[in-house]
Amino acid sequence: MEKLCRFGTNRVIEPKGVLPQAATKIDNTMIVKDNEILIDVITLNIDSASFTQIKQACNKDVNKMEEMILDIVNTRGKMQNPVTGSGGMLIGVVKEVGSAYPVSTVQAGDKIATLVSLSLTPLKIDKIHSINITNDQVHISGQAILFETGIFAKVPEDMDEHLVLAALDVAGAPAQVDKLVKEGDSVVIIGAAGKSGVLCAYQAMKNAGPNGTVIGVVNEEWQVQLLQDLRLCHSVVLADATNALEVYDKVLAVNGEQVDVTINVVNVQNTEMSCILVTKDTGIVYFFSMATSFTKAALGAEGVGSDVTMIIGNGYTKGHAELTLNLVNNAPKIKALFEQKYT
Amino acid sequence: MEKLCRFGTNRVIEPKGVLPQAATKIDNTMIVKDNEILIDVITLNIDSASFTQIKQACNKDVNKMEEMILDIVNTRGKMQNPVTGSGGMLIGVVKEVGSAYPVSTVQAGDKIATLVSLSLTPLKIDKIHSINITNDQVHISGQAILFETGIFAKVPEDMDEHLVLAALDVAGAPAQVDKLVKEGDSVVIIGAAGKSGVLCAYQAMKNAGPNGTVIGVVNEEWQVQLLQDLRLCHSVVLADATNALEVYDKVLAVNGEQVDVTINVVNVQNTEMSCILVTKDTGIVYFFSMATSFTKAALGAEGVGSDVTMIIGNGYTKGHAELTLNLVNNAPKIKALFEQKYT
Repeated sequence: MEKLCRFGTNRVIEPKGVLPQAATKIDNTMIVKDNEILIDVITLNIDSASFTQIKQACNKDVNKMEEMILDIVNTRGKMQNPVTGSGGMLIGVVKEVGSAYPVSTVQAGDKIATLVSLSLTPLKIDKIHSINITNDQVHISGQAILFETGIFAKVPEDMDEHLVLAALDVAGAPAQVDKLVKEGDSVVIIGAAGKSGVLCAYQAMKNAGPNGTVIGVVNEEWQVQLLQDLRLCHSVVLADATNALEVYDKVLAVNGEQVDVTINVVNVQNTEMSCILVTKDTGIVYFFSMATSFTKAALGAEGVGSDVTMIIGNGYTKGHAELTLNLVNNAPKIKALFEQKYT
Repeated sequence: MEKLCRFGTNRVIEPKGVLPQAATKIDNTMIVKDNEILIDVITLNIDSASFTQIKQACNKDVNKMEEMILDIVNTRGKMQNPVTGSGGMLIGVVKEVGSAYPVSTVQAGDKIATLVSLSLTPLKIDKIHSINITNDQVHISGQAILFETGIFAKVPEDMDEHLVLAALDVAGAPAQVDKLVKEGDSVVIIGAAGKSGVLCAYQAMKNAGPNGTVIGVVNEEWQVQLLQDLRLCHSVVLADATNALEVYDKVLAVNGEQVDVTINVVNVQNTEMSCILVTKDTGIVYFFSMATSFTKAALGAEGVGSDVTMIIGNGYTKGHAELTLNLVNNAPKIKALFEQKYT
């Protein structure tokens, strides 16, 4: 009998020996191994960085985008954008659970959302039904495999599945904010009007409490209005996040000093220095943006003699799915905003 | 009178508005402004990633390397490798201190090492005297400028200046280990036989104490011997750091479980997953290698459902220069090793 790996290395075709995420090609044969789950896929939520790249490469032509997505999946056996390296997630219905799968609470017929990246998930697409160019969702017929270490969440019966998909796509962000932000903290959120941004701002307001300060940084007028309408920040600063000195000056004008925690959720390059400059020497910068450059962050802090702690955003943390779905259910304005955009 | 910026943006030529590190060209006119220091440079310590790139691009031809370094400095006004983005540091003698420079303890004639990256330091090279191809040091005649926020350390009179330069180049690493590693911790150091590696291993042994475990991971036989001779680790594992499963299996064979803290100081790509897999879900990975990919780390942890905290190595932390020079002075075997290689 084949020895099965809990990380799914059995399915790696090339290069041999790496984990499925690092592989350029994995085996997407849709026959379930003993420690896997087989899923009938409903919708893919392509990662924002990847979807933007595909949209640009295809000049927003949906037919070309469809071709490009099919080509990636046929070549690699998974929906991992070769340019960005990123994936996304999916919702679907469990078709079969392998006999040695370690989680006993899941069974055929359950509707689930995968919480591991599509960049390592074996996927086969039979047909793309539609691509929603405004919300990164791709509706398909197809199948996927979840490994033994592949985490997932059941879709609550009282919530729209596409709302759940949209929220869980960024579930790590508010859950990490919950771990980082303490009562009385001052917090800057770069990109506060985006999908992750509003969830992070809500959680930061909750954790920082009445003695804390949450400052959103956005780069368009309508985003200022949105955040004010949603009451998700104490102050909103309109600034170009790639201009570190502008962000620094404007945040200090509002807060009087640097902040304790900065959360970066803006999908734009060259925003590392803004985060470093607005944060106290003893503070924390949490980089959630996939556009973050490791080198720019590392050398940037050293370059200005800042002792700030910089953390690489981890999309997974214990309880993140529950926290995020509860957040959406308890924040009617955010729920309405998401329903409007994603369902 | 010109308004001076403490970050040195006055000297940015293009693109306008960015900080000196992000600039492609800065003004290296060697006339000191009120909030700057002018330095007569003795030796550059090129960052390891940058030096390796230059060495490879020039096929180890020292004359070509000289040309390439001069060309970079003439074009950019600073020694920032356009491919790696990184710099290095320098030692020299203070020639002039601007009238508004905020640190009063420095004066003309002091021998100092800069602790900010060459990637943002205005530099002019009059002549390259020699390039030491084995230790990344370049001996020159030339001048450099230190900004108001540019940190530095005085070279102790009782230590060889090139030993000091070599040690301070990686001063952040052992100082961060000192902040991270607690009594009784288990620690993995990926690349433990390198310059940063031996300093980190020494500090980790000291902090973890008799109830802790320090495991070095190296990829060559002679490095195993070196670490055993230096007694810098409890165990040494010979493994390819790019092979996550090999590292995982071998570390677990030694330690019986995942470790509390992993320090990555190996200047090699694709080592993120090894670090993540060998570290406890509740542990910390500290990425000091400039070859780290933000995306691979972020998606990698999520991909295997690990809740590990991943920190971007900050080359600066308070007291790092003192800690590192004390370490070298108190560890005769490390001092002898460094003297042999760098002086």
